[in-house]
Amino acid sequence: MTNTVTALNTDEASAQDIGAYMRSVGQAARAASRAIAAAPTDAKSAALQAIAAAIDGQRERLKAANAIDMEKAATNGIDQPLIDRLLLDDAAIDRMIEGVLQIDKLPDPVGEITDLAYRPTGIQVGRMRVPLGVIGIIYESRPNVTADAASLCIKSGNACILRGGSEAIESNRAVAQCIEAGLAEAGLPAGVVHLVNTTNRDAVGELLKLNDCVDVIVPRGGYGLIERVSRESTIPVIKHLDGICHVYVDAQADLQMAVAIAVNSKTEKYAVCNALETLLVAQPIAAEILPLLAEQFQAAGVELRGCDQTRVLITAEPATEQDWSAEYLGPTLAVRVVEDLDAAITHINDYGSQHTDTIVTANYANARRFLAEVDSATVMVNASTQFADGFEFGLGAEVGISTDKLHARGPVGLEGLTSQKFVVLGAGEIRRR
Amino acid sequence: MTNTVTALNTDEASAQDIGAYMRSVGQAARAASRAIAAAPTDAKSAALQAIAAAIDGQRERLKAANAIDMEKAATNGIDQPLIDRLLLDDAAIDRMIEGVLQIDKLPDPVGEITDLAYRPTGIQVGRMRVPLGVIGIIYESRPNVTADAASLCIKSGNACILRGGSEAIESNRAVAQCIEAGLAEAGLPAGVVHLVNTTNRDAVGELLKLNDCVDVIVPRGGYGLIERVSRESTIPVIKHLDGICHVYVDAQADLQMAVAIAVNSKTEKYAVCNALETLLVAQPIAAEILPLLAEQFQAAGVELRGCDQTRVLITAEPATEQDWSAEYLGPTLAVRVVEDLDAAITHINDYGSQHTDTIVTANYANARRFLAEVDSATVMVNASTQFADGFEFGLGAEVGISTDKLHARGPVGLEGLTSQKFVVLGAGEIRRR
Repeated sequence: MTNTVTALNTDEASAQDIGAYMRSVGQAARAASRAIAAAPTDAKSAALQAIAAAIDGQRERLKAANAIDMEKAATNGIDQPLIDRLLLDDAAIDRMIEGVLQIDKLPDPVGEITDLAYRPTGIQVGRMRVPLGVIGIIYESRPNVTADAASLCIKSGNACILRGGSEAIESNRAVAQCIEAGLAEAGLPAGVVHLVNTTNRDAVGELLKLNDCVDVIVPRGGYGLIERVSRESTIPVIKHLDGICHVYVDAQADLQMAVAIAVNSKTEKYAVCNALETLLVAQPIAAEILPLLAEQFQAAGVELRGCDQTRVLITAEPATEQDWSAEYLGPTLAVRVVEDLDAAITHINDYGSQHTDTIVTANYANARRFLAEVDSATVMVNASTQFADGFEFGLGAEVGISTDKLHARGPVGLEGLTSQKFVVLGAGEIRRR
Repeated sequence: MTNTVTALNTDEASAQDIGAYMRSVGQAARAASRAIAAAPTDAKSAALQAIAAAIDGQRERLKAANAIDMEKAATNGIDQPLIDRLLLDDAAIDRMIEGVLQIDKLPDPVGEITDLAYRPTGIQVGRMRVPLGVIGIIYESRPNVTADAASLCIKSGNACILRGGSEAIESNRAVAQCIEAGLAEAGLPAGVVHLVNTTNRDAVGELLKLNDCVDVIVPRGGYGLIERVSRESTIPVIKHLDGICHVYVDAQADLQMAVAIAVNSKTEKYAVCNALETLLVAQPIAAEILPLLAEQFQAAGVELRGCDQTRVLITAEPATEQDWSAEYLGPTLAVRVVEDLDAAITHINDYGSQHTDTIVTANYANARRFLAEVDSATVMVNASTQFADGFEFGLGAEVGISTDKLHARGPVGLEGLTSQKFVVLGAGEIRRR
């Protein structure tokens, strides 16, 4: 394993150059992963504090680098929401520093041994929590992800390869310099965090091929990015493709609570993966609650698309089959009247994306069944879907939300970047079959 | 989702027929997975007991079916070890029944809620252990795997699709009929367990494409099978490719213990994935221990392949670079003298297959570092590598041993066939950002 990254002239790089460069990045990250995996908690803490201090000390440089990205974005006519996410002003820098320091305060998951118990043969068997190794993170636009993702990886004992959006390359380079300075100050190798130093799109394809150097890929971004990564990667991926979240208003729901939860789940933020997309209402309560809901959603400017039964009770566009699996990420909501809890669970398991689903009910048995039988990463009773978030769940920062079933489901924090190996302590035991 | 499996004329099936058949199997398994996921512990227990009773009651039929497979195997000139594994006599049937009943006695992992704690917003957040859904298991020759794998899936609340070796098809069909009878007696749908009812090789390729119906693939068999499955599958795979296991004899090892562990790790069984393949010896102890080891291995008929330093001290063939990453699965052992603990850890992490590695030492600090820094599924101190096994670890039966880093590492029992989702309990909380 080499620790030297191949030099890359980013302006004139050929496909072959990019391949060689990415391979050298992968090998350097693999080599550094052993050092960070074995690093004690205080060294990791020193690095995170030094990174936060470096970001604080380099504000002017960060803002200058960001200004170049912002100007290019304006010239290229990039969408306003994207430009908003790109901006690195003092408030954004404060949040970035705060994020790094919050991760520093989380307990170190690495090395925790659980369930250590004696077996009849005399050996003790337990599990030790260990880093995954090298994490590849592919993300778009927001430069704060660079500091966030690097900090999560450092704290969880992983090396990482960060591939940010090309529109944020100057900002990301400036943040990466602060990270490098922080690692150096703590005596940790710079190779623990690699920012892919090219905007060439081939770099993503090459990253997804580094099976022997990268243990897991985390794509953070729009559907197109995540779909591409899932399709191309032969490295395991932690991802969510869609967030088709449901609120089911049970027949025995408190009307006021149901309205508050449904409205908050939809309108608190529209363009987030934990936003409500399909509202299910139990038939016995539909006539009573749908007009109340319609009034609130109308006031909020949300367009409703309803099933036939819904449209008898309130004004709504007709919903098509496609609406039941639509992720609007905007002020549109599908509404369906279902017969009962069974029908609601079946609808969610058939059409949902296994992200986050809520029942609003006063019925104990129905709450219990919904929790057990809805097969989603997060299942809630009487709470807004918008709570599905690493911070709200007490995990600290999250590297993403997973709708996969293996490994981590739901918000992925420090623990999701680790796994458990078996440890066996003996006194010379041998096996006789 | 349909629950009807397409009929298949196994003698004249076309590629298209196989595709349609496997898709119908996948859909039927997906539909049945919801029923088994929601099944209470006592229903699953009733099914396992009824399966054990059916196997016991159908001994003559099982032996008759097995006789057909055995005769075909003899005619086809199949290897003796494979024929041995194929045989279903009364002793093998007893072990099969015992296996099913042992799985019944294990605690039900499904539905366990852990870490349920209040958050500042008032919601309670915890994790619930849930089945993965549909497990595809691809295995070779041994018909007892059919009962074992099906029982593990039933107990862990999963549906499964079992693709056994073509040489065991009649035996597997007979076992599958017992499973079907047991499920029916317990009132569970027959679709919970599907035996792929064709020996056509295309069925494996089709199974690996059923992304929307199958949640995880577990290949159990030789290198060729596992390598093919890893390469072709776009469904997550729980697997181990190689078992290149190490024993490292530290400078401060007890000589007698080190010899006993090294010899047992290699010779207790040769053709198992947890058998020792490369022995590492610390330089300061090499002159003293290598002759003792050589004597024992020579007596056991093990051929030694040593590094230059080894060959100064004992008689051994010269080891090549290839020997450090060889999985002999037979009476051959690579031997290397290493400078110290650091060199041993580096060798293991560079050449090993992240399966099972042991240090023999009396030094506390070295034991602690070896446990933390060797990046393998199972890391041991002063115990034989041959202990790496689900039964020995107290997991009950195992569906396989994983050397992957995500999800389950090491022996995969009931817990490895489940994952955890988040559950949130609220009283009408909504989120304000």
